Amino acid sequence: MTAYKKLSKEELKREYEAVSSEFSVLCEKGLKLNMARGKPSKAQLDMVSDIFDVVRKPEDFIIDGVDARNYGNLEGLSAARSYWADMLGVRPEQTFVGGNASLQLMYDLISKAYTHGLLHSQRPWCREEKIKWLCPVPGYDRHFKVTESFGFEMISVPMTDEGPDMDRVEELVKDPAVKGMWNVPKYSNPDGVIYSDATVRRIAALKPAAPDFLLMWDNAYCVHEFFGEFVPFLNILEECEKAGNADMVFEFASTSKITLPGAGMSVMAASEANISYLSKLIGIQIISYDKVNQLRHVKYLKDKEHTLELMKRHAAIMGPKFKAVLDTLDEKIAPLEIAQWKRPKGGYFVSFYAMPGTARRTLELCKQAGVTMTGAGATYPYGKDPEDSNIRIAPSLPPVSELEQALEVFCVCLRMATLEKLMA
Amino acid sequence: MTAYKKLSKEELKREYEAVSSEFSVLCEKGLKLNMARGKPSKAQLDMVSDIFDVVRKPEDFIIDGVDARNYGNLEGLSAARSYWADMLGVRPEQTFVGGNASLQLMYDLISKAYTHGLLHSQRPWCREEKIKWLCPVPGYDRHFKVTESFGFEMISVPMTDEGPDMDRVEELVKDPAVKGMWNVPKYSNPDGVIYSDATVRRIAALKPAAPDFLLMWDNAYCVHEFFGEFVPFLNILEECEKAGNADMVFEFASTSKITLPGAGMSVMAASEANISYLSKLIGIQIISYDKVNQLRHVKYLKDKEHTLELMKRHAAIMGPKFKAVLDTLDEKIAPLEIAQWKRPKGGYFVSFYAMPGTARRTLELCKQAGVTMTGAGATYPYGKDPEDSNIRIAPSLPPVSELEQALEVFCVCLRMATLEKLMA
Repeated sequence: MTAYKKLSKEELKREYEAVSSEFSVLCEKGLKLNMARGKPSKAQLDMVSDIFDVVRKPEDFIIDGVDARNYGNLEGLSAARSYWADMLGVRPEQTFVGGNASLQLMYDLISKAYTHGLLHSQRPWCREEKIKWLCPVPGYDRHFKVTESFGFEMISVPMTDEGPDMDRVEELVKDPAVKGMWNVPKYSNPDGVIYSDATVRRIAALKPAAPDFLLMWDNAYCVHEFFGEFVPFLNILEECEKAGNADMVFEFASTSKITLPGAGMSVMAASEANISYLSKLIGIQIISYDKVNQLRHVKYLKDKEHTLELMKRHAAIMGPKFKAVLDTLDEKIAPLEIAQWKRPKGGYFVSFYAMPGTARRTLELCKQAGVTMTGAGATYPYGKDPEDSNIRIAPSLPPVSELEQALEVFCVCLRMATLEKLMA
Repeated sequence: MTAYKKLSKEELKREYEAVSSEFSVLCEKGLKLNMARGKPSKAQLDMVSDIFDVVRKPEDFIIDGVDARNYGNLEGLSAARSYWADMLGVRPEQTFVGGNASLQLMYDLISKAYTHGLLHSQRPWCREEKIKWLCPVPGYDRHFKVTESFGFEMISVPMTDEGPDMDRVEELVKDPAVKGMWNVPKYSNPDGVIYSDATVRRIAALKPAAPDFLLMWDNAYCVHEFFGEFVPFLNILEECEKAGNADMVFEFASTSKITLPGAGMSVMAASEANISYLSKLIGIQIISYDKVNQLRHVKYLKDKEHTLELMKRHAAIMGPKFKAVLDTLDEKIAPLEIAQWKRPKGGYFVSFYAMPGTARRTLELCKQAGVTMTGAGATYPYGKDPEDSNIRIAPSLPPVSELEQALEVFCVCLRMATLEKLMA
């Protein structure tokens, strides 16, 4: 295998013919494989389904004098707040335990900023002329969709190996129209970057012109290692507090990838002043979230230590899938010198950078061959990757055997799209 | 016992002294009783807690080829949509099954009207100069809080024994600023009124000036009889469709008072065009609601017929409590001719009308004697009952023995407040 850049025009043509015929053979197989979303696999779901055994009898539902089955306790069961405090290193009073989706808590927060304003807002955001928002790229498509949906102007900030480019962020927040910023601080989606302590501290110490700047801290993969040991993370609430920015940050997490994606437990953590302000607004929309599910989770997961043990068992399922992806890319793509990719130790994705101008075409070919991947551009605001290069590989859902087939298809399609580009 | 209006000044004074000393005795008991909210009792919760036995093993979670534990199916499990279609008499495609709270679906709908607009909106409601909203009174405090929270001007419409005063409603909707109306069409909160078919049809045939008029149809007590047989109700979606208003109405229901208040299943029903429009917006905020809980409910409740059987068992617990309230009032208050009250056959409340100007004082005295009731005025927009008369009695939570104590306190406090008024 020779690097494509060293091939002559004639050799490129021959390679293209070979790859094309490989592609045709794959298309004829009528595959139907999916590497589109970060969905846990059935094996992972089965592994944790004994969670449904832990609360069943009438006496199981009473905890700290509260009947989890009835209305009440908007901010969550006291035991659930303590669980998340342990997980995130914050105080129980700084937590608000929600329903099955942290995305809903994030959306609700931004929606309430829009309709009612935040604690330090001068007016609801719907009364502002223009709202701008910082988006480290590549990033999480569902984050971007939320801010797009409210009409905010999204400004891309490049990611480095230590997190977002902070020189750029510090400059941008001088604009009072810049009202917030998305972050996935640990195993960022999709790059798998862990923000360095220095970056976290620079973020916590930001001096935004907007008094109600909203630091969205989506700690979705806070305990989600699949290679190696648990990597500790700074308490962003504490760092913000130290920097005089106690009310600037909201942290989010969930058990969607610890227990069950469709039936997990979410949390929002923030200063007590923020929790109190938000609880008043959230109390208008719901009497309480599903506390039986909270109770079930607390009894099943117990605490951070016990949760980390469970995450080791997830890693035993996830690790081999990520190894399969990386091994295949190392073997089949690396020698061609046509792409780069990250080597994450946790999270749910492998971020892949094809030769500029080939990502969209690669995924189009994958689709023809029956392999669904996250759409090209999805990892950028408005779905537009200016380089047409980033591809998010999500290997968690398919069993290893299917994954290997899907990767074979991906490699062939990538080579084909690259050759088309080189020959054009 | 003599009607108070027939008592002389001197007799009133003597009666007041007698009642005051009864009150003092009650205060010394140090009671702590609660008739504030429509919360099901522990006996009801225990009765249905076998719901947690129905899905437990890995194979239990797969239905119609969908794994309820994973992400997906935003509009709800197909089986859950069919269940609600059966319950409400609508088509499955007209349903959207949510999380544990119909209030959240209602709030989200109004919030989205505010931030993004509805299907037929000319602009998001936050861009309208003024929004007005019709509130049949007395009504549900949490409804009023939602529309108050968005700054809508709430206009009270008196309730009759057949539902809201429709002459008034038809007149009011000629104002294009009037964007919607709250309704609890069966066993209205708190009066327990069932809207007559004629009223329902007049509502369905409204010709509001606002093209995006939003008929909120909170069918919270659709199967919640505690005396007598199930009372059928018209399909409001069909009635609106027949009147050329297919997209005007959103119906809501939940199992909060069928299974569990904190961990039930909610639904929103509307035209397919509305469900499709809303699903796109809701898809930004959540990937899917808790489908394991949906599955659990479908397996446990099965269908409308089976649900009605369960409601008979709830009625066996609820009925005696309502009988205790009505019997006590008939015995201790009726002869005094100082108040009136409704005699509902379902729902969760007894709506009580004290002599004008005495409701607040009555409840203040109750509080002193250790009995918490729904705050006076709560059943009116902005918490202000112009007559200071309506009191919502919620007898569901306490066991009958506690309920009888609480009612004794209530009757004494009512008499005392009335005498104070008569003597002033």
